[in-house]
Amino acid sequence: MKNILDRNQNKAGEIRELMRENKVCMINLISSPGAGKTTLLERLCEKLAGRYRTGVIEGDVTTDRDARRLQRFNIPIVVINTGGGCHLDSHSISKALTHFDLKNLDILFVENVGNLICPTSFDLGESFRLAVVSTTEGDDKPAKYPMIFRQAKALVLNKTDLIPYTNFNIESFRNDLKKLNASLPLFKVSATKGDGINEFARWLEEQIINS
Amino acid sequence: MKNILDRNQNKAGEIRELMRENKVCMINLISSPGAGKTTLLERLCEKLAGRYRTGVIEGDVTTDRDARRLQRFNIPIVVINTGGGCHLDSHSISKALTHFDLKNLDILFVENVGNLICPTSFDLGESFRLAVVSTTEGDDKPAKYPMIFRQAKALVLNKTDLIPYTNFNIESFRNDLKKLNASLPLFKVSATKGDGINEFARWLEEQIINS
Repeated sequence: MKNILDRNQNKAGEIRELMRENKVCMINLISSPGAGKTTLLERLCEKLAGRYRTGVIEGDVTTDRDARRLQRFNIPIVVINTGGGCHLDSHSISKALTHFDLKNLDILFVENVGNLICPTSFDLGESFRLAVVSTTEGDDKPAKYPMIFRQAKALVLNKTDLIPYTNFNIESFRNDLKKLNASLPLFKVSATKGDGINEFARWLEEQIINS
Repeated sequence: MKNILDRNQNKAGEIRELMRENKVCMINLISSPGAGKTTLLERLCEKLAGRYRTGVIEGDVTTDRDARRLQRFNIPIVVINTGGGCHLDSHSISKALTHFDLKNLDILFVENVGNLICPTSFDLGESFRLAVVSTTEGDDKPAKYPMIFRQAKALVLNKTDLIPYTNFNIESFRNDLKKLNASLPLFKVSATKGDGINEFARWLEEQIINS
């Protein structure tokens, strides 16, 4: 296991250097299955794809369904099917990158496999990690799956439109987060309704400009 | 990796034999984080704990929060914290079993770590696997994470009370399921509201009696 992680880390370092040379901001999206990563990407593509040259790597166990949802944006998309694998690694990213024209890219979103645990152990050479968690998963996710909440540069709390129909307690959620990562920016979003997308997209633009 | 799986399989075989000797029906619950496994167990304990001698193994990355939610049922509960590990294995189950009086047990629920991928590779010696998926995760989960839907003896579709507020399409969900596992029994449930619990509990009782 240590060997696998070491080799992953070496390749991730090369990717990070390559992204820096080409001035590409690479964002690794990590969440549970069905938290809304792809819907969030649809909203972000609507906001950003005209103004920033955007690409996407879609990580999935199987199928190209998520990639097909993004096709209408006419942006470069590469699918990585892990064939049962529970996370992306830097070697699969490295291969996927050969299909992009990095000189003509500003942002590269990497949608990791839906899994709140394993992807946190694998550096992909990203500029930063973005955690996405949905209200319908319950307010106890930070306490129960702390790794990604410690690592992320920002947290999108998605499906806020469903809070009235659930027992999600935002205070309890915030209290647990504070213990793990007090300075983590939290964006409350409904990706299906569009709520909160402008504010999050503005934050994201700042990261791209400063990266 | 093959070595790890082989050793896991051997120990799982021993556990399965032990459960058979003691006439314990062991059920391995697998789902994404926040799909509602613990709330489902709360409802099942209300229905079954008086009439069947019930025990629970709670698998979690960290915390004993799920176990504490079940304490009011005064049943034996053992917590396995994987400390970052993404699934339970038969060795951790074997150790946990030493804390149960198996002769005085009819059902042993094992709530696996919230993860739709990794737990599917590790036999725990269970009588069968139960898949839990929630409507808010989206109707594309069977197609995108097929393993557990192929393995499960039954599928609980939880959070049906939230369908009116989402774009979950039950026909599309059923069509994907049919391709993976046409004979998989599907129980539509709202564990928080109690809808559909009676029907599912009846099916479960039949499994316990016939095991």
